[in-house]
Amino acid sequence: MPEPTPPLALTMGDPAGIGPEITADAWRAMRAGATAFAVIGDAALIGRHGVNVREIGSIGEAAGVFADAVPVLPVTLAAPVHPGQPDSRNADAITTSIARAVELARHEHAAGVVTNPISKIVLKKAGFAYPGHTEYLAALCNVPGREVMMLACPELRVVPVTIHVSLRRALDDLTTEGIIAATRTTHAALMRDFGIKHPRIAMAGLNPHAGESGTMGTEEQTIIIPAIEALRAHGMDVSGPWPPDTMFTPPARARYDVAMCMYHDQALIPLKTIDMTQGVNTTLGLPIIRTSPDHGTAFDIAGHGTADPSSLVAALRMAMQMAEHRNRS
Amino acid sequence: MPEPTPPLALTMGDPAGIGPEITADAWRAMRAGATAFAVIGDAALIGRHGVNVREIGSIGEAAGVFADAVPVLPVTLAAPVHPGQPDSRNADAITTSIARAVELARHEHAAGVVTNPISKIVLKKAGFAYPGHTEYLAALCNVPGREVMMLACPELRVVPVTIHVSLRRALDDLTTEGIIAATRTTHAALMRDFGIKHPRIAMAGLNPHAGESGTMGTEEQTIIIPAIEALRAHGMDVSGPWPPDTMFTPPARARYDVAMCMYHDQALIPLKTIDMTQGVNTTLGLPIIRTSPDHGTAFDIAGHGTADPSSLVAALRMAMQMAEHRNRS
Repeated sequence: MPEPTPPLALTMGDPAGIGPEITADAWRAMRAGATAFAVIGDAALIGRHGVNVREIGSIGEAAGVFADAVPVLPVTLAAPVHPGQPDSRNADAITTSIARAVELARHEHAAGVVTNPISKIVLKKAGFAYPGHTEYLAALCNVPGREVMMLACPELRVVPVTIHVSLRRALDDLTTEGIIAATRTTHAALMRDFGIKHPRIAMAGLNPHAGESGTMGTEEQTIIIPAIEALRAHGMDVSGPWPPDTMFTPPARARYDVAMCMYHDQALIPLKTIDMTQGVNTTLGLPIIRTSPDHGTAFDIAGHGTADPSSLVAALRMAMQMAEHRNRS
Repeated sequence: MPEPTPPLALTMGDPAGIGPEITADAWRAMRAGATAFAVIGDAALIGRHGVNVREIGSIGEAAGVFADAVPVLPVTLAAPVHPGQPDSRNADAITTSIARAVELARHEHAAGVVTNPISKIVLKKAGFAYPGHTEYLAALCNVPGREVMMLACPELRVVPVTIHVSLRRALDDLTTEGIIAATRTTHAALMRDFGIKHPRIAMAGLNPHAGESGTMGTEEQTIIIPAIEALRAHGMDVSGPWPPDTMFTPPARARYDVAMCMYHDQALIPLKTIDMTQGVNTTLGLPIIRTSPDHGTAFDIAGHGTADPSSLVAALRMAMQMAEHRNRS
């Protein structure tokens, strides 16, 4: 008999954001199900939102507790929390939560890491040196630069090959090697963590109409097509380069498992146009499984009890499905 | 009593494309309704698709004919038509159809011009000097450079400020003046042709997260915000610059009448992700009303009888609604 899948480790995120309330709501939605998680954070903060909480000494206790209370591996906050008013004094607690979650997953005590939203600005003030979660996780796992961001909703998966840089810089940064590396990582993850035996990969063009044979830009010829040819030579099912505006229509997106996109908004516009609430961000290329909701701290509505937990619930479910696929493979 | 609105002038488009069959299907769908059109083209070609056709001598006869047959103002083809096999010998007939339709609309014998798809490649071989329909129409109307492309479906209207150029060139071409000019044209058209008294205009950012305060690109500060401020000084309701990935979500797009977009795919990706079949392309800034379906000649399926006429029907209906708004204003 295979080992039962351990629970997920859910980070606290910024305690002044919507993390605590969507965590409470996610537990309500999931307590009767098979996917258990333990929060690495402050129990009282979660308890403010009308749910039972229980501090645990080890994540091994989480599954037994989960039906009755939110299991919490405690992290001590340095300053009191006022929703909507982030405080850099809590930066250490926020990053400690992430580091402990990664540690649990690396030692297979957790099935994977799911992260609540953080604010780069708040952490930066306290000396945090990473552009965001993804890069910090890659550093914690000793694979800096190997991380690949994939966004997924039930209808579409997208991977931006260039990420958090200006559009002009994204054009300068785009290389055949970068496309190949991101696509290989994505291909391996779709097989191992998503159970897709023969991933169908659609490669986006960069320019309008994919350049229309070079009349509206030449990067398709000079950068993208060579990457497609190299990937095909490795036996991958890669189509394109596709005109970016027609590759995300409902019939088009049914024909592939993932769209490799050349820049941030080429990937994120179609995903969020379809469905803002079910989107999940997952980091491929790490030794561990990591997902997160596809939204930020939402300080403007934190504490009002109006935040939508759907994306966090989807992130927790996707992480568990990925872990189960990985266990079986 | 106001004058009745005259019929629309529908161009033939490339006769080897799907134009003839979607024209026949559009007539079937619309013959019982109040919106009449006359085709400027070859009657026999339309008749191949199982509909009655009738040649007319003047567009004034179209309304009387429309319930029984497709009214056709004849244009003679130079070469026989084989669906899927375009022939540059018919280029003159294609452009003549467009020029005659514009002439009818400029003299108010037609309520507006609706264009069937053409192939730039086919026309270029025959010496056609314009990048596409839109520029040709602006030249015919003596307003070259004033044309603004708007794409619309029932859920979203978008205007790309830069159009058919490479993404790199679009970055180079983006100016405060260009954004202001396109937005003023759009604002005027939404009031006059769409009956929107106080258009709500959402301005997109250019960079991921709209530059995140200059950390991922500076064009928001240097180019886009100055345009927004100038437009507001003219009394327009302009919001933004918005993060491009979150401004097209279902709740976000309900909050504005049009999104001004910085490049082709920023506008067209969300529109086509929502709905490929109901999209309509309309050219603002011309003295006449002009719409077209939001797809091409589709030579690969022409003549198979499988083409979807929905976008052409939507284009015809939108043109007539625009004409009626303009008549009332």
